[in-house]
Amino acid sequence: MRDLTSYIDSNVEEYLEDLRAFCRQPSISAQNEGIDGCAELLKSMMDKAGVDADVRRVKNGNPVVLGKLYVKGESGCLGFYSHYDVQPPEPLDLWKTPPFKADVRDGKIFARGVSDNKGNIIARLEALRAVRDVQGEPPASVKFLVEGEEEIGSPHLPSFVKENTDLLKADGYIWEGDGVDEKERPIVTLGAKGILFVELRAKGARRDAHSSWAPLVPNPAWRLVWALSSIKGPDEKIAIPGWYDDVVPPTEDEFRLLEESPFEEEAEKEEFGLKRFLRGLKGVESRKALYFSPTSNICGFDAGYKGPGTKTVLPSEAMVKVDFRLVEAQKPGVLFDKLKNYLRSRGFSDVQIINYGGYEPSKTSPSDPFASRVIETAEKVYGLKPVVWPTSAGTSPIYTIKNWMGIPVVSGGGVGYPGSNIHAPNENIRIKDFIKSIKYIAALISSYKP
Amino acid sequence: MRDLTSYIDSNVEEYLEDLRAFCRQPSISAQNEGIDGCAELLKSMMDKAGVDADVRRVKNGNPVVLGKLYVKGESGCLGFYSHYDVQPPEPLDLWKTPPFKADVRDGKIFARGVSDNKGNIIARLEALRAVRDVQGEPPASVKFLVEGEEEIGSPHLPSFVKENTDLLKADGYIWEGDGVDEKERPIVTLGAKGILFVELRAKGARRDAHSSWAPLVPNPAWRLVWALSSIKGPDEKIAIPGWYDDVVPPTEDEFRLLEESPFEEEAEKEEFGLKRFLRGLKGVESRKALYFSPTSNICGFDAGYKGPGTKTVLPSEAMVKVDFRLVEAQKPGVLFDKLKNYLRSRGFSDVQIINYGGYEPSKTSPSDPFASRVIETAEKVYGLKPVVWPTSAGTSPIYTIKNWMGIPVVSGGGVGYPGSNIHAPNENIRIKDFIKSIKYIAALISSYKP
Repeated sequence: MRDLTSYIDSNVEEYLEDLRAFCRQPSISAQNEGIDGCAELLKSMMDKAGVDADVRRVKNGNPVVLGKLYVKGESGCLGFYSHYDVQPPEPLDLWKTPPFKADVRDGKIFARGVSDNKGNIIARLEALRAVRDVQGEPPASVKFLVEGEEEIGSPHLPSFVKENTDLLKADGYIWEGDGVDEKERPIVTLGAKGILFVELRAKGARRDAHSSWAPLVPNPAWRLVWALSSIKGPDEKIAIPGWYDDVVPPTEDEFRLLEESPFEEEAEKEEFGLKRFLRGLKGVESRKALYFSPTSNICGFDAGYKGPGTKTVLPSEAMVKVDFRLVEAQKPGVLFDKLKNYLRSRGFSDVQIINYGGYEPSKTSPSDPFASRVIETAEKVYGLKPVVWPTSAGTSPIYTIKNWMGIPVVSGGGVGYPGSNIHAPNENIRIKDFIKSIKYIAALISSYKP
Repeated sequence: MRDLTSYIDSNVEEYLEDLRAFCRQPSISAQNEGIDGCAELLKSMMDKAGVDADVRRVKNGNPVVLGKLYVKGESGCLGFYSHYDVQPPEPLDLWKTPPFKADVRDGKIFARGVSDNKGNIIARLEALRAVRDVQGEPPASVKFLVEGEEEIGSPHLPSFVKENTDLLKADGYIWEGDGVDEKERPIVTLGAKGILFVELRAKGARRDAHSSWAPLVPNPAWRLVWALSSIKGPDEKIAIPGWYDDVVPPTEDEFRLLEESPFEEEAEKEEFGLKRFLRGLKGVESRKALYFSPTSNICGFDAGYKGPGTKTVLPSEAMVKVDFRLVEAQKPGVLFDKLKNYLRSRGFSDVQIINYGGYEPSKTSPSDPFASRVIETAEKVYGLKPVVWPTSAGTSPIYTIKNWMGIPVVSGGGVGYPGSNIHAPNENIRIKDFIKSIKYIAALISSYKP
């Protein structure tokens, strides 16, 4: 391992050049810019690492780049998931240097996507290359699954995984990769919440009416207000029958991780300008709610006149967008049906319900051997006890691998840090974190035993 | 009267020129255009009719034009309310001729404000002039109250009335004036609903949050949904304690008028594209609801993301605009306090309530002698039984005269017809209705006995 470490240290300039070249290639999925070029560039970078790369076309979608390095005797397989697409860089005027220039300054590299997720892709390829250069054939096969639609909700990943289960088989997958926290501790995350996103629409008269007609003309804004309040009241409990039926509460191990995990409660409240969290939640109870409670959130409500002053109008239509975050083992499809049946049973057959789809929640147990290996290797390489989150409050398509293929999935060893500005102007990573991530992945590969 | 009628018929050209001159002067209160010029023009037109006119300045508001013709011996006084301001003419490209050209074609005059309310102002002045020319001194004094802010909600009329009660005293007031219906029957209206307009605002975090924070960060859209649903449920009853305490149900006379009144139920439903009215109301019950039931109407709801597709955001603020229509004898100030106390008592102290003010409801009894005189004169002049509405579904500031000064107020004998396009492009009146209105007002004045 010492050889590997010093080898990596002696190649920093080359790693930086590879990363900058990859970041200079735009790949904005939401704007369909540079996608094919980036997929081809990734293939050539995989070639350089000795990985057998394949740009797989996806009907009406962005290509998936698959990379494989088979080891004879099939002694095990380590999988990596990443995405080569990036968020739109706007607003451009807030960037100090252009988002696709990959400017290096103050020990950092600034580029759209450098932290989310291009830095991790390059770190993983450089790590594999280093292992091969220093030690020869790695102890296990390695697979790379790199999609190009993560930033627009991975619409084709589920079907791609379903159609390619054999190709994607592995002992475990390292997901996107997080980074280190403000105390330089490596972060490891073992799961994600699920989500169901719906839009409710109601219509009244064929056109807006003068509000004097309110005694006779139905008001679609009222219809949605009543439909929503039948879904959830101020107690924050979702009133739809059976909504919580499939909920699996956190295990003792997971709850212990929550208790140990750092969560700067006061700092978070201050950041949001809040005196107290919802329902006055504090301490581990607030973390438990954040990571293990299903939610129903109004993302937007649109009806009638929204300008200054008064306008006595009875709107002809109204719309509300709602996301439901789901926890293990709720299923978005099942819950959509429950929502639909519930609204119908409560007299809201007039309310149209649009299903924008969803993600299943998914978790890997902290006691899973693959998870343990990821955590232990992190402690060795970083020299600090990792922060392990049993799941995350957000969502991610890991269920396609974990739930559908039964493969453990863990996120860790990434290139980010708290100042990375993901999805924001001046996204960046620190060079030292990039190099540390290469060393971490190299350690994981070189020590891999199935 | 025959002399008066033929005199009026012989002066049509002059009346039209006066009306066109008045319509050519813009007076758009919402855009503060031409207001002072119109007030001065009106004064000169009152001078021409022998009316003692006074342009009364209003602090931070548009002038009120007061006209008085005192008759010696003070044998009674007939009052007229009108407004010289008009709605904005936009969208201009939908006008066949410019809105302030006052084009005459097909027996009609086209101009912004010609029906609402300039045609009535001129008809009343010409009527008075005709009476004086033909009969000499009228049998009673006449007063004109003409404001310049009706189209922006009459913000200064209440204080003006309070400060000038002596000047404004009269036996009764003719309000804006309606017109004839599709069967050429004159319409008489005896009242108006009141209104209370409020805005509710809720705030959550200092900035929009990612919706994964929903377990801990309060959502202001949910707060407003719950506050609203505590105000009214799908039964359409307002749940605020005491909301209906002051409601006076329609009298037998009023209910009889409702039964007699024409209301094209099927045509109205078709116009709105509705298969049924709210709560399945039909027949006289639908009219009773329209004219005599208090309402709570959502005019607008604004929160979070309203664009296409999905955005998982937890909005930092939300706003809803609500109008409450009031019936005799509800008071907007009293009800605002009830609303505020109710929301506080239901745990919504965090919801800010902005009071945009209101109008009291107001009615004059169909058996009031002044109302009877207006109705009987209409039947004589128009030769058809008038359509008498005991009140209207909309609002109007008649309460300042009726409720505060105890003076009966009736609207009738106006210049409009069903094709007048009030507040819309190509507003117009028919010349024959204009002349009939002059004759009607002349008959009312010349036959006036206190």
